[in-house]
Amino acid sequence: MSENDLNYTIRTDLAIEARNAYVEENEETQQSPSGVEVEEKSVEDINITYVTIDPSAEEKLGKKAGNYTTLESKAIRHQDTEMQKRLAVVLGEELARLQQLNNIQPDQTCLVVGLGNHNVTPDALGPLAMEKIMVTTHLFKLHPETVAEGYRPVSAITPGVMGVTGVETSDIIMGIIEKTKPDFVIAIDALASRSIDRINATIQLSDSGIHPGSGVGNKRRELSKDTLGIPVIAIGVPTVVDAVTITNDTIDYLLKHMGREWKEKDDPSKSLTPASMTFGDRTLSEEDMPGLDQRQAILGMVGSLESHEKRKLIEEVLSPIGHNLMVTPKEVDGFIKDMAHVLAAGINAALHERVKGDESQSFTR
Amino acid sequence: MSENDLNYTIRTDLAIEARNAYVEENEETQQSPSGVEVEEKSVEDINITYVTIDPSAEEKLGKKAGNYTTLESKAIRHQDTEMQKRLAVVLGEELARLQQLNNIQPDQTCLVVGLGNHNVTPDALGPLAMEKIMVTTHLFKLHPETVAEGYRPVSAITPGVMGVTGVETSDIIMGIIEKTKPDFVIAIDALASRSIDRINATIQLSDSGIHPGSGVGNKRRELSKDTLGIPVIAIGVPTVVDAVTITNDTIDYLLKHMGREWKEKDDPSKSLTPASMTFGDRTLSEEDMPGLDQRQAILGMVGSLESHEKRKLIEEVLSPIGHNLMVTPKEVDGFIKDMAHVLAAGINAALHERVKGDESQSFTR
Amino acid sequence: MSENDLNYTIRTDLAIEARNAYVEENEETQQSPSGVEVEEKSVEDINITYVTIDPSAEEKLGKKAGNYTTLESKAIRHQDTEMQKRLAVVLGEELARLQQLNNIQPDQTCLVVGLGNHNVTPDALGPLAMEKIMVTTHLFKLHPETVAEGYRPVSAITPGVMGVTGVETSDIIMGIIEKTKPDFVIAIDALASRSIDRINATIQLSDSGIHPGSGVGNKRRELSKDTLGIPVIAIGVPTVVDAVTITNDTIDYLLKHMGREWKEKDDPSKSLTPASMTFGDRTLSEEDMPGLDQRQAILGMVGSLESHEKRKLIEEVLSPIGHNLMVTPKEVDGFIKDMAHVLAAGINAALHERVKGDESQSFTR
Amino acid sequence: MSENDLNYTIRTDLAIEARNAYVEENEETQQSPSGVEVEEKSVEDINITYVTIDPSAEEKLGKKAGNYTTLESKAIRHQDTEMQKRLAVVLGEELARLQQLNNIQPDQTCLVVGLGNHNVTPDALGPLAMEKIMVTTHLFKLHPETVAEGYRPVSAITPGVMGVTGVETSDIIMGIIEKTKPDFVIAIDALASRSIDRINATIQLSDSGIHPGSGVGNKRRELSKDTLGIPVIAIGVPTVVDAVTITNDTIDYLLKHMGREWKEKDDPSKSLTPASMTFGDRTLSEEDMPGLDQRQAILGMVGSLESHEKRKLIEEVLSPIGHNLMVTPKEVDGFIKDMAHVLAAGINAALHERVKGDESQSFTR
Repeated sequence: MSENDLNYTIRTDLAIEARNAYVEENEETQQSPSGVEVEEKSVEDINITYVTIDPSAEEKLGKKAGNYTTLESKAIRHQDTEMQKRLAVVLGEELARLQQLNNIQPDQTCLVVGLGNHNVTPDALGPLAMEKIMVTTHLFKLHPETVAEGYRPVSAITPGVMGVTGVETSDIIMGIIEKTKPDFVIAIDALASRSIDRINATIQLSDSGIHPGSGVGNKRRELSKDTLGIPVIAIGVPTVVDAVTITNDTIDYLLKHMGREWKEKDDPSKSLTPASMTFGDRTLSEEDMPGLDQRQAILGMVGSLESHEKRKLIEEVLSPIGHNLMVTPKEVDGFIKDMAHVLAAGINAALHERVKGDESQSFTR
Repeated sequence: MSENDLNYTIRTDLAIEARNAYVEENEETQQSPSGVEVEEKSVEDINITYVTIDPSAEEKLGKKAGNYTTLESKAIRHQDTEMQKRLAVVLGEELARLQQLNNIQPDQTCLVVGLGNHNVTPDALGPLAMEKIMVTTHLFKLHPETVAEGYRPVSAITPGVMGVTGVETSDIIMGIIEKTKPDFVIAIDALASRSIDRINATIQLSDSGIHPGSGVGNKRRELSKDTLGIPVIAIGVPTVVDAVTITNDTIDYLLKHMGREWKEKDDPSKSLTPASMTFGDRTLSEEDMPGLDQRQAILGMVGSLESHEKRKLIEEVLSPIGHNLMVTPKEVDGFIKDMAHVLAAGINAALHERVKGDESQSFTR
Repeated sequence: MSENDLNYTIRTDLAIEARNAYVEENEETQQSPSGVEVEEKSVEDINITYVTIDPSAEEKLGKKAGNYTTLESKAIRHQDTEMQKRLAVVLGEELARLQQLNNIQPDQTCLVVGLGNHNVTPDALGPLAMEKIMVTTHLFKLHPETVAEGYRPVSAITPGVMGVTGVETSDIIMGIIEKTKPDFVIAIDALASRSIDRINATIQLSDSGIHPGSGVGNKRRELSKDTLGIPVIAIGVPTVVDAVTITNDTIDYLLKHMGREWKEKDDPSKSLTPASMTFGDRTLSEEDMPGLDQRQAILGMVGSLESHEKRKLIEEVLSPIGHNLMVTPKEVDGFIKDMAHVLAAGINAALHERVKGDESQSFTR
Repeated sequence: MSENDLNYTIRTDLAIEARNAYVEENEETQQSPSGVEVEEKSVEDINITYVTIDPSAEEKLGKKAGNYTTLESKAIRHQDTEMQKRLAVVLGEELARLQQLNNIQPDQTCLVVGLGNHNVTPDALGPLAMEKIMVTTHLFKLHPETVAEGYRPVSAITPGVMGVTGVETSDIIMGIIEKTKPDFVIAIDALASRSIDRINATIQLSDSGIHPGSGVGNKRRELSKDTLGIPVIAIGVPTVVDAVTITNDTIDYLLKHMGREWKEKDDPSKSLTPASMTFGDRTLSEEDMPGLDQRQAILGMVGSLESHEKRKLIEEVLSPIGHNLMVTPKEVDGFIKDMAHVLAAGINAALHERVKGDESQSFTR
């Protein structure tokens, strides 16, 4: 999570959301823009979506070109050990796939970077995961005879956040890369979510680079193949959400929920009465709001707003009074600990041929 | 925070909210019910409200009879050391006042109880505060010569939560009270908030007892003067809020915000055009929604709901899909640590004449 | 570890040590006193010693009558996951054996007590283990339909230490026992070691009761079958050692080490020269110290002291200058965490038929 | 504390010890070697020793040339808030003095480095202190208008240890220095002590550079003015000690203690009886050990060893059997937390003219 989270803009960190937003706003076609390929599959209870963005589509989607893989699973929120093991295995496989797409060889050296602030629990995902990464570079160097087949040199650092170090996080990472010359980088970061649904339930892998501690478009701070000359694989997990998003999501659910009831009543085959809804002992009927469409009837002017207009309005209301809190589920301590473990287990399996994703130590608290 | 928080009902833990809700629902009178006295004052940037509930008013307000003192301050959320010191001093004074109202003498022994789960940060307020309480009972017993004038015997326990111990929290507390026979009890608990506004910004003191880990009306579990024969002073701080509350609050802000703009435009002295609102490049006008009042025009049917109807509707929408998360601000680690410190400093000052509320050690991180 | 650790006397907490000390001091017989039975066995790399003390032998050994089982293993100090799993399994079996000896039935309810101070790492063993105990009492009570066959009602509490709560720890435990009426108690405590060797490498199980936070012979504070009417099984692990012990042990090793070299040289079949030892470029010979036995030659007067005299002398030297520190290995954080996990895994397996000792979640960090 | 601590050699990290050892081994002169200047003073209960080592004396003392300041105080071990405040103030002053000696100007930028492993409490001193350092570099850069007079740009990093990161710690630090170009460096490290006495009771400041994670004489890894071109001020605190040192110290105390008693009895003016000592009901007399000097009589051959011979012997005894533990006082959690706070308060005062050493937030737990 960057230092600038509180100033985050409408931009989403997830390619899957950027693509879905595009499709929504271009209703007539209901298609991905040209230059964007989308493929989906399920492995047991995990949904996997591959989004490939061509340079030609960068601007349309507001996302850098590259391969994006999204895993969706409720393993953490359900505190389900077996589901977490499966998620770690699948994560390891998908990470390995991304390494192959970037021509990373089994003996190439890796620097794993845990972004975030270890003193702020929802932002401590990266630092916590680092504690479980199997680090081997120093063994290859000092005691090569002790390293078995099936391992590669791996280092792991937690650069901290600028508010705590005073230093640009990208400077710390670049300084270490220049001194230690890894063949590729894996970076973990906690993200702000654009939907309640995704908190601790989505993992995005991508090879398009990272912008530690930066806002949008801060080219100078980008760490990517373009700027470093080596592949940079980013692993992002939404762990916080703001009050605007919670309200926006809820209003959408409200429209869907009421629309469903409304429709049924509106269906002449089911009922002859005009469409209406009941709240406790009161009934609001279509007839009370003549000439309005369903969304307007339910939510008035607000109901007739486009999605981004609604979000903007809510932000205008909450921000000046200091109520656009960035929040996290009450059970944050356990969720983050479990997710850090799943990430580390998946990364260890992808980096070391010898390690299996589900054999790692602890999948519950 | 009780184990049953997630099942919380419309009931509020704060007397000030219960009283305000009553006043709102009885608009015609705009008065507190008979049997309820309310007094307010400000000490610098801290608002203090005294609500005294007579047994005759218990039922009307859904709150037990007793003295309730509410302190409101942004000291924690602003991370302001000086404000936090002042808050601790005022808390100490108000706690001392409540002790006097209950005829508690300077040499009487106190058991301080830190309710909550130390592994769940927003629920760890009680356990964290216990670490800063000045505990002296054992010194009075084992080394009385080392205790200076101006101290009383104070013990402090953290009974845990039933989900972790397996034991009813009230059984643990009652067992210890029976063995150690304190003259009075002070209990700290984290609460679920009924408003975004109050999270980590309100402290309620009361002498009406506590119901650790229970839902409403579980008489058997009540720890109070009635059941224990000794005064029980409760200190409650809202630290979490649910998605229903966030949405409900935001919709209310929305109505107020849009209503304000609307009115101005509706004011014939200001404008001749019909009332309208502008979103980006679109304008929604009163004329599009003929025959609707302002709230309906803005928010349709939802706008015409009573407050408790609206809340109930949102709950109906979010709960089945598992989205009524209980959340806490992202900065929860720092906020809870600071609040625990303020509480402990205030309690230490109220319990030991020798101790001043602002001299305690750390008011920042 | 009790609040009084620093005042600990020559008394050892381990029956095996008391018995060995007795044998040593009664050299002529080299036997356990009558009323004490000792049996030993090994399970892979774990040494198990059973010491049964009859009431008739209580005084001779300075230990209460009862069954004592000692497990010795380097699993923690070697940070060896597989050894730790085996240790947890064996611990579970031996704990089950002790339950049988005390006629504890599979459906009887258990209160597990984690003694110690969670803020002092080497004393946090009990509290840390509690976090991994499978607690079920509340499920049997509130949702009996959710509890599978093979589980019993188990509760777990961490009463704290008197220096932090102000309350006698035994009062807290007795208060909770009276309220919750368990059928038996298991209590975990960190001990002061009488030997460097045993730190984090010995686990003692016994059914003779505990004395939380007390010194020797404080009958009033004893929690045992005698005082409570229900079986009390204690699990003790040495986690700290004092400077006196370290020095005393080292001087003994020194005598053994030098004695060995000495003897060889002293052996006429091996050498004709007088016994001597070499330090760097100097040689100290038997002839420099005429008329002294080997121990005296090596260590002078100190060498001729009895074991308890030597210990007392060292204590007299270190205590007045404040150097009899109670110390713990530098790696204490990891050791205590691992040991807590082994204890919890063994206890869970002994309490719940359904649970296996090695299936528990995490055996490494 | 370096990754290689366990392999530490006879070398001491403290200039004051190196100098004292030199003086001891050159008994005849009882003087510092030429090229070494020593000055002492006391400020209330704090002893301050200045050792200045000229390049000509480097080899004799086995310490790099430079200015070394040692503060000795029991503030931490006595858990005395007021003493800790005074220690922080004096530390700030002495650090400022060392900055002046190195021509560091009030507006020059500083990088503070907290060496050590935050997961191993006695090695977490550096990382813990970093959490209290007032970091300002990013404010000067992003919001210069918010920075008051009397502050300088300060950054703070915790590079971790090689066993955890896989990377040479010096590479991390050098990489960050090259990217951020500070004008000087302050580095905090926990040391292994050569004496029980000094644990958490000595702070050494020096301007001769650091060797993070290295053993002796690893020139390549040195971070100093020589290698970096900017001043490097090191702050070292002994926090652990090994069993060899504890035993060696104790044997020395034993000799002193017994020698004192012996002497008195040996003094013909006081007694006509031969020298003797009493242990319980036994008396060991000079006559039992004819022809031995006092040290031999007391401790035999071991008593006649030189200090470094004795240490070597003990090491030979303990190391093969795995008993040369590196240990730390049982109260390590509190001691390290307090010391980290004292260091941070002193550093903040030395770096920012506006900050006073004793005004910092928390001097007790």
